[in-house]
Amino acid sequence: MERHHFETELQALRNQLLTMGGLVEERVHRAVQALIHRKEEEAKRIIATDKEINDLQIDIDERCLRLLATQTPLAVDLRLITSAMKINADLERVGDQAVNIAESVLVLLPHPPVKPLIDIPRMAEIAEKMVRDALDAFVKRDAQLARDVLRRDDEVDELKDQVFRELLTYMMADPGTIQRALSLILISRNLERIADHATNIAEDVIFITEAKDVRHHAGQKAEKP
Amino acid sequence: MERHHFETELQALRNQLLTMGGLVEERVHRAVQALIHRKEEEAKRIIATDKEINDLQIDIDERCLRLLATQTPLAVDLRLITSAMKINADLERVGDQAVNIAESVLVLLPHPPVKPLIDIPRMAEIAEKMVRDALDAFVKRDAQLARDVLRRDDEVDELKDQVFRELLTYMMADPGTIQRALSLILISRNLERIADHATNIAEDVIFITEAKDVRHHAGQKAEKP
Repeated sequence: MERHHFETELQALRNQLLTMGGLVEERVHRAVQALIHRKEEEAKRIIATDKEINDLQIDIDERCLRLLATQTPLAVDLRLITSAMKINADLERVGDQAVNIAESVLVLLPHPPVKPLIDIPRMAEIAEKMVRDALDAFVKRDAQLARDVLRRDDEVDELKDQVFRELLTYMMADPGTIQRALSLILISRNLERIADHATNIAEDVIFITEAKDVRHHAGQKAEKP
Repeated sequence: MERHHFETELQALRNQLLTMGGLVEERVHRAVQALIHRKEEEAKRIIATDKEINDLQIDIDERCLRLLATQTPLAVDLRLITSAMKINADLERVGDQAVNIAESVLVLLPHPPVKPLIDIPRMAEIAEKMVRDALDAFVKRDAQLARDVLRRDDEVDELKDQVFRELLTYMMADPGTIQRALSLILISRNLERIADHATNIAEDVIFITEAKDVRHHAGQKAEKP
């Protein structure tokens, strides 16, 4: 494969990852909207259409393997392609989290809401933006933006703790809310995991652009439960 | 790099992954023992020594990149090396889950136990064995054993649901148990995620040995919350 063709292939890979990112981000958004606006059909649709994401993940993986097999990529391209495989896996798992949220929505909908939702939509907004920015940082090789994504992970963690404390109060005061409150706590954990995946992607971007492994070096904590 | 040297390097890579697997599995085991036997110091040690795992993960990643850079690996070796990078990431996250469990143990220990633990130790046993067998399957290229790991994931999911239902009953009956019951529910989710990582590894093994992508093709469900 000549260099020009290789560049075209790399560009196609970037585009496919952007498509994948757009798809999973949209699904997270729709899952949280289904929660807020109590839309059962929408939650069911998200669960039913997960295959699209999975097929795209396999396509992207195969493209990466083909590129590695037919090239002896230079150091920077090698890091790009192997990181693309990792980013691909993270994005697919973001899609899984959208499915998990939609499943919790189906559990919640037959019952009246525990409380007006404020922190969970806020968490969702931040986590979605983190995924979008992490992918933008990948495409533009923007280490600065990637570092900015890492910083926002703390904000999501704080909101998660806040959601937990508040719902705990509700459960203590009225055991009739326990089951619903638990579903909301699990949704907040799903959102936190989406932010963790965005963090993984941002770390990969910094690794690609600066050839420096930032994982575990920036006071990062273990993945949250 | 001549072929003989390459084989030696691949063997070293397998050994390093086995070491990594042994380390994280041991940490999961110790975290659950710290829960069962209420050992605060042990839980703290697990949290404090996570760096060892992280350093090994970076070493393994660098070895893989070096192998990809200095070789034009054949199809099967290419799949082996890229899968090793994914397995490495999964193992590191198993280590993170051990830390998460240890953190929950520290939250639980100042309070009396909610109930005797039966299902959680059982879940831990299955999940640990799944990680061990998935890695064994990798080293021996044993697709049969890998498929066996996939099957056991359902057993872990059932135990997780059982833990949830039982603790829900406790919380409803006595709101004073809510906080402790929640910590136990989160621990059961951590164990479920360890089983998910073992499942990811087993899928990679089947991919390597049969060059067939089994992800999403075996009635696999989305990653659980």
